[in-house]
Amino acid sequence: MKKVIILLFFISTSVFAQIDRVEPPFWYAGMHNPELQIMFYGKNIAQNEVSVSNSIVIKDVKKTENSNYLFVTIDTKSVTAQDFVFSFSKDKKVNFTRKYSLKQRRENSASRKGYDASDLIYLIMSDRFANGNSKNDSDKSVTEKGNRALPGGRHGGDIAGMIQHLDYIKELGATALWPTPLCEDNDKAYSYHTYGQSDVYKIDPRFGTNEEYVQLSSELHKRDMKLIMDYVTNHWGAEHWMVKDLPSQDWLHQFPEFTQTNYRMTTQFDTNASQIDAKKCMDGWFVKSMPDLNQSNSLVNTYLKQNAIWWIEYANLDGFRVDTYSYCDKKGIAEWTKAVTDEYPNFNIVGEVWMHSQAQMAYWQKDSKIAAIENYNSNLPSVMDFTLNDAFAKVFNEDKDSWNGGMINVYENFTNDFLYPNINNILTFVENHDTNRFNEIYQKDFSKYKMAMTLLATVRGIPQIYYGSEIAMAGNKDKEGDAAIRQDFPGGWEGDKNNAFTKAGRTPEQQQFFDFSAQLFNWRKSNDAVHFGKTKHYIPENNVYVYFRYTDSKSVMVVINNSKEAKTFSTNRFQESILNYKIGNEVLTGKSIDLKNDITIEGKSVLILELK
Amino acid sequence: MKKVIILLFFISTSVFAQIDRVEPPFWYAGMHNPELQIMFYGKNIAQNEVSVSNSIVIKDVKKTENSNYLFVTIDTKSVTAQDFVFSFSKDKKVNFTRKYSLKQRRENSASRKGYDASDLIYLIMSDRFANGNSKNDSDKSVTEKGNRALPGGRHGGDIAGMIQHLDYIKELGATALWPTPLCEDNDKAYSYHTYGQSDVYKIDPRFGTNEEYVQLSSELHKRDMKLIMDYVTNHWGAEHWMVKDLPSQDWLHQFPEFTQTNYRMTTQFDTNASQIDAKKCMDGWFVKSMPDLNQSNSLVNTYLKQNAIWWIEYANLDGFRVDTYSYCDKKGIAEWTKAVTDEYPNFNIVGEVWMHSQAQMAYWQKDSKIAAIENYNSNLPSVMDFTLNDAFAKVFNEDKDSWNGGMINVYENFTNDFLYPNINNILTFVENHDTNRFNEIYQKDFSKYKMAMTLLATVRGIPQIYYGSEIAMAGNKDKEGDAAIRQDFPGGWEGDKNNAFTKAGRTPEQQQFFDFSAQLFNWRKSNDAVHFGKTKHYIPENNVYVYFRYTDSKSVMVVINNSKEAKTFSTNRFQESILNYKIGNEVLTGKSIDLKNDITIEGKSVLILELK
Repeated sequence: MKKVIILLFFISTSVFAQIDRVEPPFWYAGMHNPELQIMFYGKNIAQNEVSVSNSIVIKDVKKTENSNYLFVTIDTKSVTAQDFVFSFSKDKKVNFTRKYSLKQRRENSASRKGYDASDLIYLIMSDRFANGNSKNDSDKSVTEKGNRALPGGRHGGDIAGMIQHLDYIKELGATALWPTPLCEDNDKAYSYHTYGQSDVYKIDPRFGTNEEYVQLSSELHKRDMKLIMDYVTNHWGAEHWMVKDLPSQDWLHQFPEFTQTNYRMTTQFDTNASQIDAKKCMDGWFVKSMPDLNQSNSLVNTYLKQNAIWWIEYANLDGFRVDTYSYCDKKGIAEWTKAVTDEYPNFNIVGEVWMHSQAQMAYWQKDSKIAAIENYNSNLPSVMDFTLNDAFAKVFNEDKDSWNGGMINVYENFTNDFLYPNINNILTFVENHDTNRFNEIYQKDFSKYKMAMTLLATVRGIPQIYYGSEIAMAGNKDKEGDAAIRQDFPGGWEGDKNNAFTKAGRTPEQQQFFDFSAQLFNWRKSNDAVHFGKTKHYIPENNVYVYFRYTDSKSVMVVINNSKEAKTFSTNRFQESILNYKIGNEVLTGKSIDLKNDITIEGKSVLILELK
Repeated sequence: MKKVIILLFFISTSVFAQIDRVEPPFWYAGMHNPELQIMFYGKNIAQNEVSVSNSIVIKDVKKTENSNYLFVTIDTKSVTAQDFVFSFSKDKKVNFTRKYSLKQRRENSASRKGYDASDLIYLIMSDRFANGNSKNDSDKSVTEKGNRALPGGRHGGDIAGMIQHLDYIKELGATALWPTPLCEDNDKAYSYHTYGQSDVYKIDPRFGTNEEYVQLSSELHKRDMKLIMDYVTNHWGAEHWMVKDLPSQDWLHQFPEFTQTNYRMTTQFDTNASQIDAKKCMDGWFVKSMPDLNQSNSLVNTYLKQNAIWWIEYANLDGFRVDTYSYCDKKGIAEWTKAVTDEYPNFNIVGEVWMHSQAQMAYWQKDSKIAAIENYNSNLPSVMDFTLNDAFAKVFNEDKDSWNGGMINVYENFTNDFLYPNINNILTFVENHDTNRFNEIYQKDFSKYKMAMTLLATVRGIPQIYYGSEIAMAGNKDKEGDAAIRQDFPGGWEGDKNNAFTKAGRTPEQQQFFDFSAQLFNWRKSNDAVHFGKTKHYIPENNVYVYFRYTDSKSVMVVINNSKEAKTFSTNRFQESILNYKIGNEVLTGKSIDLKNDITIEGKSVLILELK
């Protein structure tokens, strides 16, 4: 008997060794879409027949030109949470088996509510915020090791560091965290930004573990805060394990020679565009190290849909930010987005559509009337207000009033709001990890910072701030490249002389910026007129912009004087907004202003008045 | 008896004297809209009852606060062309009578076809083109007399001058004439542009007579050319006879003190706009000398509709250009436009909507999906491509290639074509009477002129050129004001030393510009791929822009090299447009190009290739 048992043991281990990967590694019972495509990966696995226990129905088995892959689609409809077993047979003999789990979902998982305009999103460059666990900086499973001396190297920021500083982020007034991608990016160098991922089911070990990511989510939720995952549908990294053993050549967009995208996103809706230009934009690679995924291949798109849904369910997410959204396969990305929002109708997804015209950006938001001209619907709930970002980058240096200069550039952005199908669900930002830093452009001018943040906190949309802005971080991207705008947050590394996470550790300048930001954004938290109210604005006069955010019962009047001189103006012009309100209580100073009288505002300053 | 007759004669003349004006002065039988509102003007005329002969039905009689007006609406349904008589009575006694005529329409008048993309429009500043009749320069009925020495004075250009030079315009290749307004403008000074009209049923005597205007139309039609009237719906001149004795205060937009428009046209669709800003934009006066008409007053709007229709019918017009279209009452102008196009479904009307975003301009074109977001439809068939005009004004000095520089600025204009509901019916222009002159911006650079005119002649839309451009006329608006871009056409005045109307009279430079223009535009006349074909364009590379205009059976390939250096490129990239064509016959030089080979193009030059 002993001999037989040993023999069986050997057979068993050897057949298990035939399966190197199963993705998704597990799934959930009771999903909206009952179909589940499980990818089995192992040497010549496609030579096997596959069957499954527990009366589970296999709807489809797909093989590709690479016999190391098997794509098995099962029907999970009415299947409760349970484990079952896949058997892989050859010549009617079971070669090996694999257990698979359908897990129980969290209560109300499907109806989870995403971030919205009541939130403030704090964007972190994950490698550059805080190194909470220095032991994982140079994990042996990945190629690039920690090296803080390299501007484009791995500095060691991680999930543990984020968790340690959630109270700081909360103190600032942020209610949602968007870390740049955390899944493994095993590029040999310059991997710190993690947009070229090598395993999309695994947190990069230099950031932590899958379990730590779940912990981050749970620690945020404890604080009434939300977690937003930075998801990349357009491409993977060249080091992705599947890229190195492609299921099929058409898993990626391939060209006879390396072909980069032309970055001309207008080709995606331009009815005059040549096919060759449109194809190159969409299918060309973003950069050489980022192979472009072919989302028109349904195996690929299903893989991406399920991966996204898996993370939401597994890590209890509150939203996505989707990278390079408009570079994806136009039809494929709309299907991907629909699949995710079909599972989670109240989830939020903001897509990066970096264009400079409101009509062109509005095209990509769900139910766009502009996209409907071409019978397109991206299904994407939210886009980013890049034209407002364009204005932020120049307007506060435009001290002089003119037809096209000064606050008129901010005003004009909002004159196009009607083009967006859902203007409250648009992400607003002064800067992000790809743009110039505000405090660099304006040389840490505190007045200009206050004007910009006031705008951000009070105009329609979901405000997003970029880590370090609140402590006057700068850095010149034009001169020194991306690393300049992605510097380490001071205090995030042991031994940092300046620790901006604590009041005691901050310089006076940092404290000044932080205090203002925290006051403003904590005030914002409870003002629903600013979150979801309507906007009424007035043509700027003398470089002074006045607008109101209001509901039936509340109104906030904002005055921004972008000229260097103090200005006095009559409130008569604003009667249709002032209505029966008598007093404006200034949010930042606590002063009261009688709305019957003329208002005087200092040069380069703001007033935020709660009307009573 | 003799005594009695004399007495009756005196009564008769005295009662006729009670009617100073009847407008429209006559009308036509068989119009689509059977209702006709006739305005009777005379001292206290409203004190009378009105009746009419020939069984004509009076549907409505409206009095206003000014007893000098009576608005009588009759029903002309099924009424044939005839004369009938209105009687005005007081205390049941006929005080006086007035004959009125319904005339016979021209055959197929209702189905007249307007100008379209097969045309080339020649825009004339009417006072500055040619003085065909020097006797009318200082007509005694108007205040401002001819004075050619004044840059902003009346120079004497007239309808007779236009008629005398129609063959010149035809030789150039133009097929439609747009003279700036010709109705009477009796302003004391600066009346030459005629946009502040004082009588909209009468040609300004310094331009000629109503009969001469009809003759102009007929002379154009003889030459297979079209006449476009420049119509002003937004305002009249301060000297308009009705402004001096207003039917009602609300005939105009009135303010407690003079209030100018804020010119911020975005307020007309901006859902965040304050009412006060929107109202000021629409109702504020364009300038002090141009009282703003209240088109929301139905008496006013009906007056304007009928006046417009009267001119079409009377002068046998082929189209309108409507001044300051987007400054008009938004609802009222849509109704006005619908009234005109209901009468003439194939008539064309282009509105001046001077904005700098395609979405904003497209808003104003008939059946715009963008305007439909707000349930608006202007009914306006055509708008002007002001963003292309913006590009024309700078692109040819952008010799260097960059992400945002050079031909990409022209290319990008066309990437937004899908926003327009009818892209073929958009008016394209290098310059007009309000913009800087092209030959001033580019200092009469012939290469740049050729590039611009080639674009104008071959891109989609209805091309419009501005008088004198074709003979290198310049003039600096920024320095010297409007008069600089509205100089007299050389040769239009007796004694002009330089007569650019004739080959013998032109300078070598004028001849060079004219020859090229005439060759290009006469070629364009017969190329329907350029008129109504589709566009396929390719992202400019190295500042070289390549596009095709094509139908199923015809194709024109246009290459514009905006860099200073010669460029050579492979035709491989254009295979989806080249298809099975083998040869490109260059339109300007007659040379043949083998499409299999690389193409070389000189710096700052164009190729227009008819593919065979």
